[in-house]
Amino acid sequence: MIRAIAFDAYGTLFDVHSVRALLEEIYPGRAGAISILWRQKQLEYTWLRALMERYEDFWAITRSGLIYALKNQGIKPRPADVERLMAQYLKLDPHVEAIEALTALKQSGLRLAISSNGSPAMLDAVVRHAGLDTLLEAVISVDPVRVFKPHHKAYDIVTETLALPAADILFVSSNGFDVAGATYYGFETAWIQRSAGQAEELGATPAHSIRYLTDLVTLVS
Amino acid sequence: MIRAIAFDAYGTLFDVHSVRALLEEIYPGRAGAISILWRQKQLEYTWLRALMERYEDFWAITRSGLIYALKNQGIKPRPADVERLMAQYLKLDPHVEAIEALTALKQSGLRLAISSNGSPAMLDAVVRHAGLDTLLEAVISVDPVRVFKPHHKAYDIVTETLALPAADILFVSSNGFDVAGATYYGFETAWIQRSAGQAEELGATPAHSIRYLTDLVTLVS
Repeated sequence: MIRAIAFDAYGTLFDVHSVRALLEEIYPGRAGAISILWRQKQLEYTWLRALMERYEDFWAITRSGLIYALKNQGIKPRPADVERLMAQYLKLDPHVEAIEALTALKQSGLRLAISSNGSPAMLDAVVRHAGLDTLLEAVISVDPVRVFKPHHKAYDIVTETLALPAADILFVSSNGFDVAGATYYGFETAWIQRSAGQAEELGATPAHSIRYLTDLVTLVS
Repeated sequence: MIRAIAFDAYGTLFDVHSVRALLEEIYPGRAGAISILWRQKQLEYTWLRALMERYEDFWAITRSGLIYALKNQGIKPRPADVERLMAQYLKLDPHVEAIEALTALKQSGLRLAISSNGSPAMLDAVVRHAGLDTLLEAVISVDPVRVFKPHHKAYDIVTETLALPAADILFVSSNGFDVAGATYYGFETAWIQRSAGQAEELGATPAHSIRYLTDLVTLVS
């Protein structure tokens, strides 16, 4: 029986590509390419730093991913532009259906939390900016355990913070690698496919595959 | 003082994109996109499975990466095509300068080895096919330690097999993440840039950045 829902943040509740408008303003015609590579490298660096046991927080990793993406496009990163873009990460748009979905799920009596790679300051800012803070019981960052998802320590802190066994928690993510890690870990899992979803070939099938966060309301009722 | 050289295999000695001709034959017009995504997912799955402690050998991971890439291109993978493409991985072309470089380095008295994510059977086949077996003292696979690079255990077995401290080994890789891991580990490192090299933003600078394997001959003399 599901008692709580843990949501991934970046990509799942928040649209990481909502930085595109500012990218387009600063680097006209290249926002799409930069945004995609920025996200790709941000994720790669979390996996690689976790594997190398060379933790840096997600704020520093997000900046490194941006710098890689800019250089890749032949752009010499100007510090003022980099800081403007980083500041945008603190006010990412929530996905359009996020507030409606979380409001309904909370009203149904479920405990709601975030499980994220983000550093506490980043998460606090983006959650408040989106007005999600009153809906969430806990915002659980990997920062205290100094690894990133899908390392098991990143999931241990979710069960510990919620004081529930993994099987009583529905773990919701749009990121295929995160759904795979959470499924192997023992959570009940829901993968948010949205439009472009392709399942990862990692041998773990999520319990549920749905398109939007609002589909969770039917799923848990 | 450098006593031995450890070479990464895939991308460094062997051209992972030499599968393109067969891809083009089977899926005309889509070889480039499939080849790039195949390689990308192959690497991602090594990092993710190492982090999740869900080891599968590199042969199985290479197949999963291929299947992801084919599905991404809207192709339903036919088992016969998949097996033909997998077989091609056992006869990847060595990079054009590889044999000349390794022959000269061996003649200069250095001990030569491979350090690879590959499974032992894959490595044995590709090394023999390229005629590199007589030049190498050891082909060191991560398989016995059941993780992938850049986890430190993947590098421990290099120093253990060669019975040398890391600082006496020149670690050579074209893969930025591998050079970063090897540099943090304590090897002297050389990054093979070839044409398209962009350094990773992982905070570790290799001791040497060169274009071709043959540039190593001057470097160690």
